Amino acid sequence: MHGRANNRRVRIEFGDCDPAKIAYYPNFVVWVDESTHHLFESVGFIVHDLQENRGLQIPVVDLNMKFFYPAGWGDEIHIESKIDRWGTKSFNVKHRITNARSGELVAEARETRVCVKIDPDHPKELQGLPVPSDIRAAFGGMEG
Amino acid sequence: MHGRANNRRVRIEFGDCDPAKIAYYPNFVVWVDESTHHLFESVGFIVHDLQENRGLQIPVVDLNMKFFYPAGWGDEIHIESKIDRWGTKSFNVKHRITNARSGELVAEARETRVCVKIDPDHPKELQGLPVPSDIRAAFGGMEG
Amino acid sequence: MHGRANNRRVRIEFGDCDPAKIAYYPNFVVWVDESTHHLFESVGFIVHDLQENRGLQIPVVDLNMKFFYPAGWGDEIHIESKIDRWGTKSFNVKHRITNARSGELVAEARETRVCVKIDPDHPKELQGLPVPSDIRAAFGGMEG
Amino acid sequence: MHGRANNRRVRIEFGDCDPAKIAYYPNFVVWVDESTHHLFESVGFIVHDLQENRGLQIPVVDLNMKFFYPAGWGDEIHIESKIDRWGTKSFNVKHRITNARSGELVAEARETRVCVKIDPDHPKELQGLPVPSDIRAAFGGMEG
Repeated sequence: MHGRANNRRVRIEFGDCDPAKIAYYPNFVVWVDESTHHLFESVGFIVHDLQENRGLQIPVVDLNMKFFYPAGWGDEIHIESKIDRWGTKSFNVKHRITNARSGELVAEARETRVCVKIDPDHPKELQGLPVPSDIRAAFGGMEG
Repeated sequence: MHGRANNRRVRIEFGDCDPAKIAYYPNFVVWVDESTHHLFESVGFIVHDLQENRGLQIPVVDLNMKFFYPAGWGDEIHIESKIDRWGTKSFNVKHRITNARSGELVAEARETRVCVKIDPDHPKELQGLPVPSDIRAAFGGMEG
Repeated sequence: MHGRANNRRVRIEFGDCDPAKIAYYPNFVVWVDESTHHLFESVGFIVHDLQENRGLQIPVVDLNMKFFYPAGWGDEIHIESKIDRWGTKSFNVKHRITNARSGELVAEARETRVCVKIDPDHPKELQGLPVPSDIRAAFGGMEG
Repeated sequence: MHGRANNRRVRIEFGDCDPAKIAYYPNFVVWVDESTHHLFESVGFIVHDLQENRGLQIPVVDLNMKFFYPAGWGDEIHIESKIDRWGTKSFNVKHRITNARSGELVAEARETRVCVKIDPDHPKELQGLPVPSDIRAAFGGMEG
């Protein structure tokens, strides 16, 4: 068990769709990224504040996405996000995306994120950090 | 061996970057998708024409991306794309993204794409098709 | 008077912001476009259905946007949209964007849109149409 | 006369287009913004360096865009950008967008930008500045 899940809905807008009239696939990655931010907020950690106040960022180092069924213009998708694994310096976030009306599985994503310190004057110099214990505790996570 | 690679460059613009001052990671997925289109063009298949004239589309069903080093505002990245595997109804495209100046490895991606027929009036009804032999031949690929 | 306004909220996400840590300005144009779609829906016209069932589209021919105060990562903006003018073949949509918390005026936009028929096989051949009377009636608009 | 123009080309990709099979209109605003950055670079001012080294930014306060003819998937557009007016604290950039093959006028844009200082710790506190004389000189502009 890794604590709570966050749920959100995203409506597929005209501008999210491509000439095949379905959601352009890289847009799902935007919604996945946003969903991780929302998941952190749901346990009291604003990613913006982590960055501003603690110099901490959580960039993605590995992304896997599987697409099962298209989502089209006007559809609403439901995204359930939760922490799937806690490592020493990294963690996985799993996202399950379904069609909010039909329940159909649309896509699944797994992000591996790391904790790093970024020096704003040298934004490409990332320094790995252990996952802060207060963050892990907030999710109620136990094992690695 | 699976035939030729396509190479292109993308400049990281201001609007491609996020408040961490590095390229927002879902944008890499856009560049990967575009690169597959360019790869097909490099062997004479315009994806637009495949869709318009043959009703054929090549949507992604699985994406894996690994991020090794950030790309920042003003950087230029080099994307090398090639077919990595031919299956009966699917194929893999591998993308290697480096910093065009330093040569540093920035990211790697592997897309699994399928061949499908889309009815424009029912854009979510995808019907799987074998990879057309002329496409496979154009890449000079033999087997999967 | 031109009938009802539609109101919606948009949260400014990390990926919506640029290295200046404020919403990247072209993103406001995306939100404006979406807001026009939502405005039409609020009076019973799904833009998707207008396109699919009546071959009718409402592309923008003129856009004016004024930016008064930045919106930053984590802000929520409120967008009020309404029809500002009905012409014979065109109409204006006005959008007023404020910070949902402080009430500060963030931006204003005015889109001029036209009614056109698009032939899906020749997507660039637009044929001007009078504004359909049922659409205008739905908004309760009277004058030109 | 306000000095030199910058010219660039942008290819309309699949993912830039919407279900109407033409470039999604807010994307033109992205290309306009990028083109202003390229224009500045063409006279030796990297916008990135202005921001990092001089704390100077050039946000848009007013945008006007007119759309004359659609650009579709696979089209290449040509963007000519130049300074159209120098004021004390602001300047206008004019962009003329044509179809690179047919020469057809696609869109025109006029951005009014201001010079401001941004404190990275308070990104929404913008302080107006006169247009630096070295920038104006680089463009060869004389009048206001």
